[in-house]
This record gives sequence, C-alpha cells and structure tokens, in this order.
Amino acid sequence: MTGQDAVDLGFARVDVDREARQGLPEVVYGSGKTPGQVVEVVRTLLRHNAGPVLVTRVDAGTAISVLRAVPGGTYDSEARLLVWRPAEPTGFSVVVAAAGTADLPVVREAAAVAAAVGIGVTTVTDVGVAGLHRLLAEQDRLRAADTVIVVAGMEGALASAVGGLVACPVVAVPTSTGYGAGLDGITALLAMHASCAAGITVVNIDSGFGAAMAAFRLSRVARRGTP
Amino acid sequence: MTGQDAVDLGFARVDVDREARQGLPEVVYGSGKTPGQVVEVVRTLLRHNAGPVLVTRVDAGTAISVLRAVPGGTYDSEARLLVWRPAEPTGFSVVVAAAGTADLPVVREAAAVAAAVGIGVTTVTDVGVAGLHRLLAEQDRLRAADTVIVVAGMEGALASAVGGLVACPVVAVPTSTGYGAGLDGITALLAMHASCAAGITVVNIDSGFGAAMAAFRLSRVARRGTP
Amino acid sequence: MTGQDAVDLGFARVDVDREARQGLPEVVYGSGKTPGQVVEVVRTLLRHNAGPVLVTRVDAGTAISVLRAVPGGTYDSEARLLVWRPAEPTGFSVVVAAAGTADLPVVREAAAVAAAVGIGVTTVTDVGVAGLHRLLAEQDRLRAADTVIVVAGMEGALASAVGGLVACPVVAVPTSTGYGAGLDGITALLAMHASCAAGITVVNIDSGFGAAMAAFRLSRVARRGTP
Amino acid sequence: MTGQDAVDLGFARVDVDREARQGLPEVVYGSGKTPGQVVEVVRTLLRHNAGPVLVTRVDAGTAISVLRAVPGGTYDSEARLLVWRPAEPTGFSVVVAAAGTADLPVVREAAAVAAAVGIGVTTVTDVGVAGLHRLLAEQDRLRAADTVIVVAGMEGALASAVGGLVACPVVAVPTSTGYGAGLDGITALLAMHASCAAGITVVNIDSGFGAAMAAFRLSRVARRGTP
Amino acid sequence: MTGQDAVDLGFARVDVDREARQGLPEVVYGSGKTPGQVVEVVRTLLRHNAGPVLVTRVDAGTAISVLRAVPGGTYDSEARLLVWRPAEPTGFSVVVAAAGTADLPVVREAAAVAAAVGIGVTTVTDVGVAGLHRLLAEQDRLRAADTVIVVAGMEGALASAVGGLVACPVVAVPTSTGYGAGLDGITALLAMHASCAAGITVVNIDSGFGAAMAAFRLSRVARRGTP
Amino acid sequence: MTGQDAVDLGFARVDVDREARQGLPEVVYGSGKTPGQVVEVVRTLLRHNAGPVLVTRVDAGTAISVLRAVPGGTYDSEARLLVWRPAEPTGFSVVVAAAGTADLPVVREAAAVAAAVGIGVTTVTDVGVAGLHRLLAEQDRLRAADTVIVVAGMEGALASAVGGLVACPVVAVPTSTGYGAGLDGITALLAMHASCAAGITVVNIDSGFGAAMAAFRLSRVARRGTP
Amino acid sequence: MTGQDAVDLGFARVDVDREARQGLPEVVYGSGKTPGQVVEVVRTLLRHNAGPVLVTRVDAGTAISVLRAVPGGTYDSEARLLVWRPAEPTGFSVVVAAAGTADLPVVREAAAVAAAVGIGVTTVTDVGVAGLHRLLAEQDRLRAADTVIVVAGMEGALASAVGGLVACPVVAVPTSTGYGAGLDGITALLAMHASCAAGITVVNIDSGFGAAMAAFRLSRVARRGTP
Amino acid sequence: MTGQDAVDLGFARVDVDREARQGLPEVVYGSGKTPGQVVEVVRTLLRHNAGPVLVTRVDAGTAISVLRAVPGGTYDSEARLLVWRPAEPTGFSVVVAAAGTADLPVVREAAAVAAAVGIGVTTVTDVGVAGLHRLLAEQDRLRAADTVIVVAGMEGALASAVGGLVACPVVAVPTSTGYGAGLDGITALLAMHASCAAGITVVNIDSGFGAAMAAFRLSRVARRGTP
Repeated sequence: MTGQDAVDLGFARVDVDREARQGLPEVVYGSGKTPGQVVEVVRTLLRHNAGPVLVTRVDAGTAISVLRAVPGGTYDSEARLLVWRPAEPTGFSVVVAAAGTADLPVVREAAAVAAAVGIGVTTVTDVGVAGLHRLLAEQDRLRAADTVIVVAGMEGALASAVGGLVACPVVAVPTSTGYGAGLDGITALLAMHASCAAGITVVNIDSGFGAAMAAFRLSRVARRGTP
Repeated sequence: MTGQDAVDLGFARVDVDREARQGLPEVVYGSGKTPGQVVEVVRTLLRHNAGPVLVTRVDAGTAISVLRAVPGGTYDSEARLLVWRPAEPTGFSVVVAAAGTADLPVVREAAAVAAAVGIGVTTVTDVGVAGLHRLLAEQDRLRAADTVIVVAGMEGALASAVGGLVACPVVAVPTSTGYGAGLDGITALLAMHASCAAGITVVNIDSGFGAAMAAFRLSRVARRGTP
Repeated sequence: MTGQDAVDLGFARVDVDREARQGLPEVVYGSGKTPGQVVEVVRTLLRHNAGPVLVTRVDAGTAISVLRAVPGGTYDSEARLLVWRPAEPTGFSVVVAAAGTADLPVVREAAAVAAAVGIGVTTVTDVGVAGLHRLLAEQDRLRAADTVIVVAGMEGALASAVGGLVACPVVAVPTSTGYGAGLDGITALLAMHASCAAGITVVNIDSGFGAAMAAFRLSRVARRGTP
Repeated sequence: MTGQDAVDLGFARVDVDREARQGLPEVVYGSGKTPGQVVEVVRTLLRHNAGPVLVTRVDAGTAISVLRAVPGGTYDSEARLLVWRPAEPTGFSVVVAAAGTADLPVVREAAAVAAAVGIGVTTVTDVGVAGLHRLLAEQDRLRAADTVIVVAGMEGALASAVGGLVACPVVAVPTSTGYGAGLDGITALLAMHASCAAGITVVNIDSGFGAAMAAFRLSRVARRGTP
Repeated sequence: MTGQDAVDLGFARVDVDREARQGLPEVVYGSGKTPGQVVEVVRTLLRHNAGPVLVTRVDAGTAISVLRAVPGGTYDSEARLLVWRPAEPTGFSVVVAAAGTADLPVVREAAAVAAAVGIGVTTVTDVGVAGLHRLLAEQDRLRAADTVIVVAGMEGALASAVGGLVACPVVAVPTSTGYGAGLDGITALLAMHASCAAGITVVNIDSGFGAAMAAFRLSRVARRGTP
Repeated sequence: MTGQDAVDLGFARVDVDREARQGLPEVVYGSGKTPGQVVEVVRTLLRHNAGPVLVTRVDAGTAISVLRAVPGGTYDSEARLLVWRPAEPTGFSVVVAAAGTADLPVVREAAAVAAAVGIGVTTVTDVGVAGLHRLLAEQDRLRAADTVIVVAGMEGALASAVGGLVACPVVAVPTSTGYGAGLDGITALLAMHASCAAGITVVNIDSGFGAAMAAFRLSRVARRGTP
Repeated sequence: MTGQDAVDLGFARVDVDREARQGLPEVVYGSGKTPGQVVEVVRTLLRHNAGPVLVTRVDAGTAISVLRAVPGGTYDSEARLLVWRPAEPTGFSVVVAAAGTADLPVVREAAAVAAAVGIGVTTVTDVGVAGLHRLLAEQDRLRAADTVIVVAGMEGALASAVGGLVACPVVAVPTSTGYGAGLDGITALLAMHASCAAGITVVNIDSGFGAAMAAFRLSRVARRGTP
Repeated sequence: MTGQDAVDLGFARVDVDREARQGLPEVVYGSGKTPGQVVEVVRTLLRHNAGPVLVTRVDAGTAISVLRAVPGGTYDSEARLLVWRPAEPTGFSVVVAAAGTADLPVVREAAAVAAAVGIGVTTVTDVGVAGLHRLLAEQDRLRAADTVIVVAGMEGALASAVGGLVACPVVAVPTSTGYGAGLDGITALLAMHASCAAGITVVNIDSGFGAAMAAFRLSRVARRGTP
C-alpha cells in the first residue's frame, strides 16, 4: 500500500489507494450525497489519482451543480452517470443484451460505466426468450464479444439461453422489472443462480454498475494474456 | 347433483358424484393410505362410477397388494400410478416437454395420468434452454400438439421459451430438481409466473398429476368444439 | 418464420412475426412507455399485422395522446386498455368470476382483453366462499362457460370452490387485494397452487391480461376441434 | 396465587398453580421427554391438582411404560394422547371439520384433547371446498355446534367456507399436508388469516391441541353465561 | 336461506341474508369505495336488515358525505368506523389490552366495532411485557373479562403473557408497528402462533375488526349458555 | 501479532495468535471433523497457547477417541463439549434462563462453555412467560447476575420480559424448539430483535456457544473496570 | 418496585419506576406522537425521575415545539434526538465503527444516545471490508474501546472483521442501506448472526438506539467491577 | 451447428455439439443417474467429442462400476468427480480461497473441475475474515492469480474482503455450511450480492462446479487476448 491510503473528508474517507491496488480509482455512489459532498469527493479523486473518475446514480439537478463546480466532466442522463477522464479504449469488448425495453435503464448504466473504463460496448435489446428468433438472429454478435452482460427481469430466462449460446463469460444482471411473482427482482436473481447453463455468474439486482465492474476485472486479465 | 353424492367409508368420504359433475371419477391420492384403505376406496369408485379409476403416488408394495385384491388394474412403477378402466382415446393430444433428465418422474406421472383419461401423449425430454438447438429441433412436434405440458426445475426457463414458440395452451409444472437457489421448486414456480411469454399457466411443484388434469379439462372443451 | 421477424425502433424491437406464429400480434405493455413510444409501436404493429392491436396498463393521459395520433382505436379506462381492430367473436365464451369488489380492476382487464381477441365474456362478481349461496346461485352460468377465469385475492379460496363445481378449464388469477397476511397476493398465489381441486391452473398476481391470453390459447384449440 | 406455585423436578418446573389460575392443570408436551420424566411430571400433577392430566404427542412405547408406572390412565394411539381423570362432560359441544383424510391425525388430537377436558365432540371429515355438496350436506350439524374447529391443509379454504355458514366461533387449524406451494402449512396459515370470512381465528400449524384448548377457554365462558 | 339472498348493485352484490345466517348484517369494508358506493350499500343493508350497519376503514371526508346522504349514523374518527343502529348491550364484556401506544389505532377499531355489536369494552394500554408490573397491576381487570383481545406489534409477547394469566378466550391481533425485524407485523403474527401459552387464537395483522367479530361470535355462544 | 500467527495442518490452519489477540485460544467446531483431525488441532492449540482449549458439538464416540489420544481433558455429554485446561473462575457471573425444558441442550452448551472460560454460572429453567409467577419468583437471582443469557424458542418472549426486569446486559439465544409457525427458530430470532425491551442483544439460533462467548467478552470489560 | 409504578396519561402509561429498576428513565419513542403528547410524557418523566430524559426519532418541527414548551433540553438534528439532563460521563467508552457513509444516520443515533447516558463515544467511519487497510489503520482505536458498536448495511461483513480484531464486546447494528439483495437490512441482520467471529451480538435493523442501550447495560456491569 | 447436434439415448439426449459451440463437451451431472446410465452417456461423449469428459457428484460405488466399464478415467473421491481425457494446462491460473474447513468439499469440486479443464489451481483455506492476518498473509498469492474463486458459507464476508484486495475477477461461491441464520447458504448468497466490493460475481450455493466453469469461460477470453 502507498504512503497515503485514504483522505478523510469528515463525512467520508476516500480510498485514494484503490487505483494502485485495483487499477481504477474508487467509484462514487451518488445516491444520497449532496452536490457539495460529491464535489469534494470528486476533487479528491481527481487530485490523488490519474484514471477515470465516476459518480453513479446522480440525478440531473445534482449533475448540473457538480459539473459547474468541477468542469471537464460529462453527464449521461439515461445512465445517471458523471464521468471525468474516461479511459482509453482497451480493445476489450462486451455485448449488453437485454430481455425487454423495461430493462433499459440498467442496460444504460452498464454500458456507460463499461465505456468509461475503456471497454467497447454494443447493446442488443428486446431479445427475451419468448421470441427466440430475435435472440438467434443476434448469435454472431453475441459470439464475437469478449463477455456478454445479460440484463433481464421477470423470470430472467435470457441468462440461461445466452449461456448456452456463447463460450465467453456471461455476467447476468437481474432487474426489478415486472410485478407480482417477480418479487422486485428476487425471482430473477434466484432463477439466474439456478440456471441450467454452466458457468454463468450473477451480480446484484439492477446493478448495471456491478456488471460493468465485473467486465472491467475481466478486461484486465484478458489484457495480461496467458503465457 | 345425484341422489347419492358421497359414500362414507369411516376413514374417508368418497365423492361418487364427481363423475357426473366433472366427467371423471374422483382420483385417489395414494400417499399415506394403507393398502386396505386404497382397496376400499377403489372398490367404491368402481361400483358407483363407470369411468377410469386412478390412484396416484403409490409405492410398489402397496400396488401389488391392491392389485391382488382388486384385479383388472395396471401399475406403472415409474409414474407410481394404479389404473382401472382407462378411458378410450379422445383424439386430444399433448406433448410433455421436459428440461432435463432429473425431471423424468414428474414427466412420467403427467404422461401416465393423461393417457389414462384418454389423451394422446408424446414426451420430449432434455430440451432445456441452455441448448436451444435441441428445443428448436422439436418445434414441429410442439406445434402439432393440442396442448404442451412443460416440466422444468432449476430456473424453469423452458416454459417461457415454449410459450413463445407455440400458439396452443401451455401448462407449466415447476419441479423440485436442482439445489441451492432453486429452493426446492419455489424459484421455478415464481419464475414461470413472472414469465415474459403471455398466457402460460402454472400448476403446483412436481404436480404431473395437476398438469394432466388441466389437460383433461382442456380436452373436454376441445371435444365440445365451438359453434 | 417470415422474411422479416422484427422491426427495430431503436428503443424497442417489435416482434411482427408473432401473429404468424401465435395467431395474435404482440401485445404492448404500456406501463413506463412515453406516448410517442406507444404511437410508434402501435403504428408498426398495425402496418405489419392484420389482427387486433392491444396496449395494456395505459393511463388516461397517455391514451388520449395516442388515440389522437393513431385514430381508430378505443380506450377502456377501467381496464386501462387501448384496442385497434378488435377480433370478430369466435363463439368461445368465458365467465370471469370474482370474489369481491376490490378485485374489479383485474376483472375488467381480463374481460376487456378477452373481448378484444374475440372471446365472449360474462362477469360474475362478489361470489367469495364466505357466502356460498351467492356462488351456488351462479352454478349454471359457470357450467355453461367454455372456461372460467377466477379472480380472487386474500386467501384465494374461490378457485378451489369453482374448480370443484365445473368440468371446464379454470384459470385462477391471484390479486393483491387484502392486507397483512395476504402478502400482496403471494398468499393467494400459493394457496391457489396448493388447491385441493384438481386441474386448476394459475397465472401471475393481478394479471388479468395473462388470464385472458391463456383463454385465447384455449379458444384456438377449441376452434380447431378434435377429429 | 397459591402458597406453592411450582414444583421443581430438576429437569422441569411443574406449574401446579395453573389449575387454580386457568381451570385446568398444566398439559404435558410429551415429545422429547423420557418415560421416566413423563412419569415424574404426571405424578406431580396428579398429586397437586384435582382435574384431568394430559400428555400430548406420546409414542406407543413411551405410553406403555408410563401407564405401567402410573395406572389409571388411558392411551389414544391415533391422537397420541395419555389421559388420567378425564373431565365430566360440560354440555359444551364442538364439531371438528376436516378438509381431507390426510388431516386426520390433527383431527384426532383435537377431538381427544377436547373430550378429555369435558367437551362433546363430533367429527366431520372430507368436506373440502372442492366438493361443496359434501360440506353443505353437513350444514345443520355445523350450525348446531357451540364452536367449529376447522382442520385443513393445502390452501386452507375450508375455514372461509365454514366461517360463512355458521354464526358460532370458528377456530382454524392449518395442517402441513400437501406438498410444494403448500410450504408445510405456512400457506394454509396465511390463507386462513387472509380469509374473507369475518371473525375466524387461527392456531398454530398441526396444533389440534391448541384448537382444543381454545375451545376449552370458550366452554368456560359459555358455562359462565351472560347476565 | 331466505327468498332473497343478495341484492345486486352492479358494482357489488350485497349479502342481505347474512343477518339471518350469522346474526349480524354484512359489514362493509370502506377502503377503496367511493362515497356514492358506500351510500348505496348502506341503504340496501338498512332496508333489508334490522340490525347494526357498520362501515370500516372510512376516512373523514367520505364519512361526512355518507352521513349527509344517510342520516342517523355516527362516525368514530379514531376507529375510522361508521355505525347505524348500534346493537343493545348484551352483557358480554371484553378487555382490549395493548402493548404500546403505537397500537392504539387497532385498539380503537376493535373497541368501536365490538361496542357497535353490543359488547361491553374496557381498554388497557401500555402493558407490554418489558414492564411486567404494569401488566400484573391489571390482572383483576383482565380476569373479569369474558374475553381478552390482545393487540401487540413488535415481538407480540403480550399475547403469551396474558394467555398465561387468564382462563377466558384470548384473541391476539398482531400489529404492523415497529420496524426492521418486525417485518410489518409478520413477526408478531408468527410469534403469537408459536406462543407457549395454550389455547390462544390469532387474527390477521392490524385487524381490530377481525378480533371484534371473533368476540361477537363468542358472545353469541355465551348468550346461548350451556344446558 | 506474534511471530507465528497460524499453524497449517493441511486440512486446517490453526489461529494460534488468537489467544494473544482476544484472550482465549481458538475454539474448535467439532461437527464434521474426524477424531484424528480433532486430535491434531487440539494438540496444536495446547502446544502454542496457555489457556483453555475447547471443542464444541462433539458426539460421544469422537470424544472417547480424542480423550484417549489427548489425555487431561473432560467431556460433558449434555453440552457435547470437550475441555482441556479450564480457566480459573474470574468472579464474573451469568444466569442462564430458559423458557422450557426443550431448550435444555442449548442451555447446557452455554453453561458449560461459560464455565470453561472462567465464568460463574447459574441456570434457571422453565420460566416461560406463560407462567409469569415462575419468572417473578426468580427476579432476585436474575438481578444479582452480571449478565443474563436468555434461551427461548417458540415466540421467544422471555427475552423481552427479562430485559424489562434487569439492568444488566441480556444476551438472547433463539432456539429451534417448537413447530409450525416457529420456523425452526427464525420466528424467535426475529421476535427477539423486534423486542420492546431496550438494549437486548441476540446471537444465532441454538448458539449456546455464541452466547457464552459474548459473556466472555463482557467479563473481560468488567474485569478491566472503569477508572 | 416503588409505591407508584406508572403514571397514566390517558393516551400512554409512563413507566416511572424504570429508573429504579434499570438505572435509566424510560426512553420515549417519538415517531407517531404529537408535540403535545411528547411534552406531557417528558414532563412526567422529568418530574418523577432524576436521570436523563430522551426522546428518539423526533423531526425538527416537533423538536422546536417541544423545546419551547419544556425548556432545558437540546436537539441533535442528525441523530433526531431530544435530551434533557444528560448523564455525567462514566468513564466507559465505545467506538462506533461504520462501513460506509450511507450508515451515518444510524451512527449518529447510536453516538448521541450513548453520550446522553454517560458513555464516551468515538466514531470511525468508512471502514468497510472492501478496503481492509482503512480498517486495519484503526485497529488501535478499536482495541482501546470498552465496547465496539459496528454499524453496517449491505452484507454486514464489518461485524465479522471487527469481531476478529478486538477482545471486547461487539454490538452489531445491521442497516437498511444498499438495494436489491440487501433486502432492506434483512441480509445484513442474518449475515451478522451467521458470522464466523465468536461472541458478536446483534440488535434490530437501523437501531442505533438499541446498540447504545446495550452499551449502557454493559457500562453498568463494568462500573460494578468484579471482586 | 454441426450435422448432428444431439444423441438420443432414450433416458437422455446428449448435447454432442456443445464442444463445438462452447469449447468443452457437456459435463454430466451424476447425481440420480444409475451406473449404467452414466456409462452410456460417457461413452457417447467420448465417441462424439475430443475434449475432456467429466461426471460430477458421483459416489464411490458408482465411480468404481463406471470406471470398470469405461477404462481410462480417474476418480477424485473428495471432489466426487470422474474425469477422462483431462485438458492440457492452458497457463491460466486460479486461486480457490476458502473461509473455513467446512467449505472444503466445495473447494475440492471447484479445484478438481478447474484442473480437468486445463486451469492451474492453488488452494488457500481457513482465511475467514474473523482472522484477517491469515488472509493478509496470502495477499501476494491472491494477487498473482488470473482469477480468485472465493468459497464461503455462514455470512460469506470473505468475498468482500478478497474483492477489495485483488484487481482480477472474483467468483464467489456461497456454501451451505453453518446453521440457524445461515439459512443453508441463502444468507451467504444474498450477502455476496449485497457486497460493498465492486465487480464481484456469484454462482449458486455449493456450486464448486459452477465457479470452475465460470473460470473456464474466463480462461478462454484470456487465451484469446486483446488486440
């Protein structure tokens, strides 16, 4: 660890060592933070690190205030993401495949975060298993990816179907779309774990961010290569 | 209702009016009944009704004792079903499609009960969504059916996939196969309800019997036809 | 499958092949879509298909905007349903039976969707099992139906009672009415699955739409008849 | 409270004051106790109290040993109940109504405990709501009771139906019969609470004992009368 | 049953036979009904029955409108209850005992409904088991009651403590007070069922109404007396 | 930390630094370990530490084998505990109070572990809240303790009652006794957390060991005193 | 107990004996009480007791009204706590350690309540286990405490890590921060109970108050010392 | 897809195309299959594919029979795995890190499957977060891996801690070890999803196999490299 691991801002302790440890500065969870708090954390990260600085789950009002105080960033309102110093493209590519249009906000978060950390992103939507021909028509695109992120709510069956079509890593994101027996994403999460397709992995409900970070970890291994 | 609705055997009250009301004598749930009790109920049903008499969930030992006392029946050890006076074929046909080999006991119960009440049955197994080509290879057979019974445990995704392929009724049976996040069939049951395929219906976990009886109800409507 | 399976609108991929595959164009889930998005999807479906076009879960404001842009449709505010080109009556009939007045919104959705796809609909309300005489008074009407859709919240017992009275298919819709131990419909859903009446099938909580689509599948088998 | 409230036997502290406080000596829960322990507790209760002494959930082997050591008692093997000094009949009567034959062990416990504390008992079995005519045929018997104990597993719908037929207290006992979505009695318990019939009360799963004790409390109020 | 069992108002079917069957007209659940609907139902009940007419869960605005249209009733704003023609006192008495002040709305509903159907009511509040001396100080009052209604949220322990103190029937009402592990009343409901005090019965979460109706059933048995 | 933190035995890595860090050597969880494995771990702990060595959840057969190989220890068959070098009494005292006799195995584990680490233990059993006089009779003993460990299954109400009677720390252990709505201890665990008595803390279901270790932590603070 | 145990205010019964029994006056739960009710309860407590008077979960508006009516108190808006007559420092000290900034409201409640009852408080935030170096940097401060209160949501892992670092009592507070699989704090609560660190105890979700009161109980034992 | 996708053995349909599609022949789930069935499936796979053939969850008896019939394989009794034609080492390496000794069977399955498909495996056990120094001592080994598989039951906290230490992909396997609040692995599964460490992914409970297959997918991307 470095000489200075963390910067104490009173309301938060910023982990400025993370970039050295994990190849990416700490990502800020914007929800529940005031614009002033976001500004302070972002400035600290920009000062003590060299890589991309990201704030997730930021509403438009907060974003405008923060960008005024810390210029040089961009705001993606669909992904609700603020980014400064996005990473150079690494050549690693993911396809984000979604079952339905209701899953789009999660798709956008996954795609925007992945892009900001240097991953090439293609999105493929509305390929739920109730219309297999739409999914099969995208087979080649799915197979060309280094990793597929599957975003699906309701019964989450898309993860199993994709898992059987591709050989690369599959990261499944259950979403809270749907109603009743969908249990706000719990059913999709459990179903993805019980999947009959081997080697699928799962992240938290609605966590497009988590899936993108999983892809970032993958991209680092891929870059390293194998002797 | 008829003059006599039920016959009281002391330990049970047999609904001998059901054949008149629903087109099929009461089906006996064998689990937990002694051979002597099964014999008494079966004799009562054979005497007061004219149609098929079925006992479900019967172990081999009980079956042998009962058949000795009430000849003329047959025992299907895989389906664990006793049948006397099976119905004539009605021309109504179902395909029972199963995701994996672990679902076979439930498939067998569904198929044997359906056959005993006059339904033509084809079974298609090992067509889980992790190998879509196996499922797609069976499309024509699925589409030719009057009804498809889908039997699937784990994440139960087969129900959604079949629901999107066929136009006929789909009755989904969640099974308790799998482990961990499968929650003994609860996950499959919830997932089938949350399915993105419209118009799928679901029966109880492991209830091949329930699916066959749902098909029997369908077969009666189909036979009636539409003006 | 046809030459063109799906039309990509950017925000959605419309399954224009579904009519050929399943006898009914894709039904649009209105919740969460902007009026502009609904308009685009509806126009695509009207252009590429010949049958009824439905949008479910549409609020009044959206409905007015959409109808202004795409004339020829009608809006049912109780069912929250938009319909263009409703199907001709097929002769297939359902009774929608509801336990209590709180279940009416779900009843209305089931009835309106069923009618739009060509099914004859009768509704019977307030026949909960706590007042069996009200249910028994409707026996003849229930028995005359090709299918009964049972809509019930709380303990969902109406499904079992109806299942024992009629010989035709019974599709049960658990509703989220009630409070406390009703668990927003989960209790009714589980109870309907655990039902002592054989051959009942169940759809998702509050899904009047799902029940109507299950009836539509049934109506197609009935129309086909049995040799 | 009396001079001596409890007798300490080392492994247990017997509440010998309960007869004064609640009109009935402490009832012993036999499960998990050795024959020697049961003997000691029973002797203590017989010595310090004047009323009936009951031990529930006793297997046959233990019962034989205990009766040899403490003569004068009787064992009901179906109810798994040991009784000494049963109470005189009080004139208070209950009907124990059960949905199916699988609920019989719970029915037997309820009936035997109720009888031992002086309540007149009639049992009515196999009156599940899937065969309403069987239930309606017993209406007069149900209405003549001072209290109805309803024993039902699966979806537990019998409680609602009986609750709507009778004016007297209804004590519902959910049972763990059934499988899958029945969740070992949890579904029936929740469903009975969510019941649409007003004023039904519920006891623990499989607790025939609890229902009988609830009836005993009722019988005391009834005996007291109302000015 | 009478010549006319139910009156169909289009949006609801009023059970006007219930008074004959159960000694009390149907009670109206006000939540979700418009003032106009409540007025129609109340007028129907007043016309076809002779006993008390109650509407539960009515907000103040609705209450004012309804009382203007149907004079002669009274509104209890704490209990949220409308009553016409309250019953004469029957001499039957209950104590409503509550664990804490947060349980008061449920206490008030139980007390007001009980009073409206002729039961004498005393309320005892803030007697949670964390301050046993407060509970013990009320022992005599509890023991004098014909029935005790225990209202408790959080862990619901008051039901067990009262169950051990009194010999009369105990009806426990779990409430949704508390937070976190209280699970909106589910924990209290389960805990009351698992109670170590024999013969306690339980009604639905927050259902002061259900407890009062259970007491009404009890009061009828008590009035009948025992030969 | 010391020069050597852990000893690697191949199948396990023994934390020999824990005594320095936490004042007590690592306690071995015996369940699932072979006698040979237990022997190796115990020898390692005896060699590298100076304090008491404990193995929990050991069956009698394993205990005999282990004691033969590692003399000087003792086995408590009720607590299922092996102990070498028990600690000197520290003067710190706990009362272990249990609701019922079925909770005794957990009581024994708590008491034996506490004694082995130098705590004085008194046990008070059968003081469930359904018989408050038995609990109140023990008030003085409870108040004299430095800490009370409350062991209770079913509804777990004893924790609240004791929490209100004493000023000292209360550590509650939910047990898996009871059936049905007790949910194998989950109900008691949740109820203890939702308790109306302030400052109660809870450990895992059936974890007499956890409660004793919590008491050990307390005893160290108490010994340290306060300036 | 004293001559007067409780003061009845009509809407509440104030336990004025608690100070004698437990060393601290009853703490008022402010949520859901009107300013007038809070004023009455606080006045009663100030009059009948000598120690600190606390009201938790008070919003700013209520606080201003109450302080105007009952001068001499202070309001901590972050902790949402009103305090009159705070206790003298006792020399007992706790560290409140929190995993993330989202846990701060719970940290503040724990800290403010603890300070008001005489405990010295240090807070250590942002020491979640995903950045172990931040936690390890605080080891000395954690080890110097008499007790550590761990506040953590999401997966609650901080409790296990701290439990392994310190020898003193650890009171874990699960929080409802996080989303999806965090289940509003249920996951953290269960995880803290299943913890691999021995002797950790847990309080209710978000209950900073409960943890502070547990620490108060501990402080009394520590003050008492051990002979 | 190839000319022949699947081979139908009657009781199963073997997916012989999977090797072409996903780089590895179908893996056989041995549990519940007879030795004869395993033999047939293995022979089919050996004949139609060129890569490694694996059978998981095989007991020793079955393994011996199968190896006699299909020579050339090896059986790992701890991993319960049968392997024919293991893959050449690919240079890709994983560390399997486990919290405790009870997690070893899952560790062994993960390690053996990974090795059989060409991955280099190191195992690091007993590094639970309650003894952080043991984990920190292994930091270098963890950081050298291409991927870390974390195996942990109880509260599953190890996944968060490792996730914060390494930059590479982390695949977490919750295990069913522990008791009570661990809920047979559900708590660990939920906790791992709610983890505060970004980019961790999770597989099903006890699924060492699933984790190894996820690593296999990763190894293929790594081998492919990035331009």
